[in-house]
Amino acid sequence: MTLNQLLQNAPKNLPILQATFGLERESLRINKSTHKVAQTPHPKVLGNRSFHPYIQTDYSEPQLELITPVASSTSEALRFLGAITDVAGRSISKDEYLWPLSMPPRITENEIGIAKLDSQYERNYRKHLAETYGKLLQSMSGIHYNMELGKDLVQSLYQQSGYRSMVDFRNDLHLKLAQNFLRFRWLLTFLYGASPIAEQGFLETPLTKPVRSLRNSSYGYVNHDEVRISYDSLEHYISDIEACVSDGRLIAEKEFYSPVRLRGSKRNRDYLTNGVTYLEFRCFDLNPFDNKGITQETVDTVHLFALSLLWLDSSSAIDQEIAKAQKLNDAIALAHPLDKLPDEAPVKDILDAMQAVINHFDLPNYYQNLVDKIVEQIAQPNLTLSGQLVDYLEDLSLENFGQEKGQGYQDYAWQAHYALKGYETMELSTQMLLFDVIQKGLNFEIMDESDQFLKIWHGNHIEYVKNANMTARDNYVIPLAMENKIVTKKILSEAGFPVPAGSEFDNKDAALRYFSQIKDKPIVVKPKSTNFGLGISIFKDSVSLEDYEKALDIAFSEDNSVLVEVFIAGTEYRFFVLDGVCEAVLLRVAANVVGDGKHSIRQLVAIKNSNPLRGRDHRSPLEIIDLGDIELLMLQQQGYSPDDILPDGIKVNLRENSNISTGGDSIDVTSSMDASFKQLAADMAKTMGAWACGVDLIIPDKNHISSKENPGATCIELNFNPCMYMHTYCQEGEGQALTIKVLEKLFPEIV
Amino acid sequence: MTLNQLLQNAPKNLPILQATFGLERESLRINKSTHKVAQTPHPKVLGNRSFHPYIQTDYSEPQLELITPVASSTSEALRFLGAITDVAGRSISKDEYLWPLSMPPRITENEIGIAKLDSQYERNYRKHLAETYGKLLQSMSGIHYNMELGKDLVQSLYQQSGYRSMVDFRNDLHLKLAQNFLRFRWLLTFLYGASPIAEQGFLETPLTKPVRSLRNSSYGYVNHDEVRISYDSLEHYISDIEACVSDGRLIAEKEFYSPVRLRGSKRNRDYLTNGVTYLEFRCFDLNPFDNKGITQETVDTVHLFALSLLWLDSSSAIDQEIAKAQKLNDAIALAHPLDKLPDEAPVKDILDAMQAVINHFDLPNYYQNLVDKIVEQIAQPNLTLSGQLVDYLEDLSLENFGQEKGQGYQDYAWQAHYALKGYETMELSTQMLLFDVIQKGLNFEIMDESDQFLKIWHGNHIEYVKNANMTARDNYVIPLAMENKIVTKKILSEAGFPVPAGSEFDNKDAALRYFSQIKDKPIVVKPKSTNFGLGISIFKDSVSLEDYEKALDIAFSEDNSVLVEVFIAGTEYRFFVLDGVCEAVLLRVAANVVGDGKHSIRQLVAIKNSNPLRGRDHRSPLEIIDLGDIELLMLQQQGYSPDDILPDGIKVNLRENSNISTGGDSIDVTSSMDASFKQLAADMAKTMGAWACGVDLIIPDKNHISSKENPGATCIELNFNPCMYMHTYCQEGEGQALTIKVLEKLFPEIV
Repeated sequence: MTLNQLLQNAPKNLPILQATFGLERESLRINKSTHKVAQTPHPKVLGNRSFHPYIQTDYSEPQLELITPVASSTSEALRFLGAITDVAGRSISKDEYLWPLSMPPRITENEIGIAKLDSQYERNYRKHLAETYGKLLQSMSGIHYNMELGKDLVQSLYQQSGYRSMVDFRNDLHLKLAQNFLRFRWLLTFLYGASPIAEQGFLETPLTKPVRSLRNSSYGYVNHDEVRISYDSLEHYISDIEACVSDGRLIAEKEFYSPVRLRGSKRNRDYLTNGVTYLEFRCFDLNPFDNKGITQETVDTVHLFALSLLWLDSSSAIDQEIAKAQKLNDAIALAHPLDKLPDEAPVKDILDAMQAVINHFDLPNYYQNLVDKIVEQIAQPNLTLSGQLVDYLEDLSLENFGQEKGQGYQDYAWQAHYALKGYETMELSTQMLLFDVIQKGLNFEIMDESDQFLKIWHGNHIEYVKNANMTARDNYVIPLAMENKIVTKKILSEAGFPVPAGSEFDNKDAALRYFSQIKDKPIVVKPKSTNFGLGISIFKDSVSLEDYEKALDIAFSEDNSVLVEVFIAGTEYRFFVLDGVCEAVLLRVAANVVGDGKHSIRQLVAIKNSNPLRGRDHRSPLEIIDLGDIELLMLQQQGYSPDDILPDGIKVNLRENSNISTGGDSIDVTSSMDASFKQLAADMAKTMGAWACGVDLIIPDKNHISSKENPGATCIELNFNPCMYMHTYCQEGEGQALTIKVLEKLFPEIV
Repeated sequence: MTLNQLLQNAPKNLPILQATFGLERESLRINKSTHKVAQTPHPKVLGNRSFHPYIQTDYSEPQLELITPVASSTSEALRFLGAITDVAGRSISKDEYLWPLSMPPRITENEIGIAKLDSQYERNYRKHLAETYGKLLQSMSGIHYNMELGKDLVQSLYQQSGYRSMVDFRNDLHLKLAQNFLRFRWLLTFLYGASPIAEQGFLETPLTKPVRSLRNSSYGYVNHDEVRISYDSLEHYISDIEACVSDGRLIAEKEFYSPVRLRGSKRNRDYLTNGVTYLEFRCFDLNPFDNKGITQETVDTVHLFALSLLWLDSSSAIDQEIAKAQKLNDAIALAHPLDKLPDEAPVKDILDAMQAVINHFDLPNYYQNLVDKIVEQIAQPNLTLSGQLVDYLEDLSLENFGQEKGQGYQDYAWQAHYALKGYETMELSTQMLLFDVIQKGLNFEIMDESDQFLKIWHGNHIEYVKNANMTARDNYVIPLAMENKIVTKKILSEAGFPVPAGSEFDNKDAALRYFSQIKDKPIVVKPKSTNFGLGISIFKDSVSLEDYEKALDIAFSEDNSVLVEVFIAGTEYRFFVLDGVCEAVLLRVAANVVGDGKHSIRQLVAIKNSNPLRGRDHRSPLEIIDLGDIELLMLQQQGYSPDDILPDGIKVNLRENSNISTGGDSIDVTSSMDASFKQLAADMAKTMGAWACGVDLIIPDKNHISSKENPGATCIELNFNPCMYMHTYCQEGEGQALTIKVLEKLFPEIV
């Protein structure tokens, strides 16, 4: 049996692109003032390193390792990496940034503190590495690229192969891939090598010219010469490694550093019974031109490259081939970045294979473009990563370049810091919760992105969360009760809480008879089902029978059930209650500007809109203020035109309503609101049986202290899907982080 | 201070009609064969008499007492009474019915078994009554009418009155009402007296002619002459009763039988400090022409009558007035039903007062009609209840009339027995749950009728229920997960349950690439968000690339997310799972008729539609089959016209789809479905975390036994709001009562 011609014989509609991906990226934390490796411990805010699936420390304490979960596409993997990068950037000290290059800045051995891991074994292993290879080498960073062929793809190929054992097939398939990877990886070194220099002090004998990839050369992180592993069969491969471990050439199997690793079992010998599951490509330098260290284009090119390795036949004398390729790779890695590929590089073989895969499986144009780009880079080495870096070299140093890029990426992480990069189409509170999930190292799956439906887990403990606050902690019927204003009022009122007195009517006659009970009071007449819609009449003083009847006619024209309620004067506050505790209080005020005696109203609006918290469509904590018809009319009624200079200190409202969605301001008053009102709101939520709940209270006098007998506040609505983000990033006030509180309540074991 | 002229001086828009009402109705259980009082114990299905708020036993074991909760209108009170009557009728043995008359059928003392109550005190009290009054008197039944004036009404009158104490005001107000009630209650005896005879053996000296109301006469259930209670002041009233109790004329305060009772405290003396809250009018004979024993018209007339008692001045010599009125009442009660009112009856006084109330407060025309009707009845006594009964007398007996009416009302209770009378506009499952609530004696409040939102409680234990199955037992996020088919499939699939393999695509290119994975399989292509809407293509064998592409185009024209799923052939069953146990399994089949060789298809449809389970708009367990365009086309395609005689045994489908809503049949297969499938469905619901859940399984072969390895069924949907009633009343099969199971799970303490 042979795996040659397997793809060639496969049907055109084989799911050839089906695969899963995982990326790991290392990066050093750098102090912003000294531009030296940070001497601070791993950020506490990242929780517990013993289980954190996304943000770990690699060799040394300041070396972060960012690890994506398994993704079902390259774009999903990069989105994960972007988000984890975003979280890492905002989790490290504001005095630090991440080094964007594989080669560290100027560094000395004693700056490299071994990671303070819990595991004694891991600490000992790192000590051994320091002794064997020196600590400096451990400060290099790179990207590992994990790839597993899709289940349907492997199954189809297996059926076609004639193999009788899936384990054998998997092992042969992956061994062939690994062999061919080693034969052709020099192309990746050429294209993506990005470690052209070592900063002063790193090498005993400094370079005299830039190279493509120090890290992928013999100067890089490689095993000593006595570690020689055959790839001619899986059995040889395994027994060679085992021999090295048993005679001490390696301290553990994992100390065998190959640019490609077989993966799926912890012990190599287990592959013989379980089969290799996936491969890890370990040769990628950090791409300093991308904040994530690798681009979408690179990830997809490598995917196509891997498929073309499967297209190519295996070599018969594989170990010699690999040794030859290793020499070629070393030459290319140590060549000047602007040098062309040496003639002996079998570039046509690999390019033809890539082209053949594209043609045979009729891949989208996108993949053709990727190959065209490789051809271009081969012709013009200045287009490769190391070729581009030549322009930034200053005296064979990239210190300034690295500092500028690293700080730029850190600034980028703090841009629109309320959002989670890559997930901006999701609701803002869900983005914030996902940020917390990644930061605290919980596992997650987006079950349905447009539905904001998340699965979050830690060990065996699973929680489903929708809209960041709909969880298993609330019971089903209570949100349904809160959805119904009549029911909500009844429950609160039966429990003795203040709600607007009123009644529901299904005919005008009965409503008219109610007049005697409300005639001296301020009232609201409204259709039952449209609370903020048409048909609402408000009488802030009192109402005549004639006007009352008119209001009833208007309301009954909208709904056949009408509410007549006492109108409560005062200021409306939103209390956010979680698990019986009021965690935030917000005042919302209408869109407005305050004059400075210098700028026009139009200019003041523009200045206010320049706040990065303001955006559009609820994907920012505050909305852009428009100067539309409604705002202009509002200005006109107050005697202003938009180009008037507004006197110093004069405040002009641009809207009647205080909704955030029409440019209103959010003012966090959590700390200034009297505790008695917070307790009242919390008691209401508890009475209702709500876990996460927004309580809207009208408070006529904030200086009044609330009590059971004299609450001084009236509840006009409970909200079962309360917006959380508006409490966090406010126009005024410090803001309250709420999504993390939800998460810590859901997973108390990680707190 | 005086209460005279209080209403006369009140503003026209006083909420005069504001009041709450409660009705109590006694009735004897009668054996259907013997037409004698039933000798069976109180129905077990009614649960525990020690707390049942609606259905109690009165004096004797066979005498039911039906008690409404407090209602905020007369119509609500009657609706309650109708529902409780309905539940009582369907809770007693099918061999029994309720006696519709106040006077019992032929009865002897030893047929009257004292109610087997838990309380020793209550049993002793009843023994005392038997000794004092004889058991026969205890077998008379009537209606007690409780009425409390509205809070706003009382408050307004109090403010206007000049009283300084609300307690004093309440006491004076209610005493005046009670005094005037006693002065004018003869009018009620005239209008609503309905006990014209006693059956043979009841009276020692039989009547020689019919009367108006034996029960309201001196033959009725009255205290002995030595019990004389003054009404001239509350203090006198209380001390007179206390004196009777202390010297043994009465065994307890409650033994004082007056046609009107002050209510609100258990001990009369407490009124002096707490105030009287409401009045109980106790003089109403059962109206045998209404299944509830009293009509809406009567209840409203009495309401108006009570208000007119408030309009009338008090008398200065009240005890003499009451004594005089008592004599008048006795005369009227013992007069022939067709006799006119005696001249000395001050009928003008009370009619004028009623008219004055209508005029002063501008009451709706309805109330004028009620007064006009009284005037008519005064002129034509044959229109009164006893007047009407004259026609049914046979040898001074109403045995035959009582049997016929009683059995008729019992038949009515079993008409549309799936519904709860008076609540037919609510969803059927909610009606069924309310039936169970009343039957088991739980308290309830309909928080929002159109929202099917109930509050149910027992002691301090409150449960809210919407749509009969949305409760606090389910957590909030799981129904939201089930609402989302993608999420549901992911959760089930991750737990290893069979769901249709498939994928979601947001672009056609990716979906086309998926072709190789599905090309040999039966598939469904559907827009993500419209499951039963447009854009679905089903390929039951396999699909060509061309057809697949067309199907994708159709689906993408409906939604920008498209699902491609393996089509699962087999029969779809609905499994209803509650709290981890599958309680019912239903097969739904398309609307159809089966020929008998005699009737045309049209006639067969009509016969099928005559099933009382069939109705319209989901307010019956099955829907009427229409012979509309779709059905006629379906017939035509099978080569039939609607007037063809269908051969014996031939089944013709009238619809493609099996929905109950288009006339489909429900077939209960709970007992025949293999337990392994029920376990599978229950396991799915448990995995999902659902408490109440509908599991739709496709089963290709019902004879296959399901196992974990080879489940033999595929889940195509979970339903978080599963219809319950369709499992209970089926076209075929015994049916499964589910709402009672929900209720017993919610309130295990009553089981």
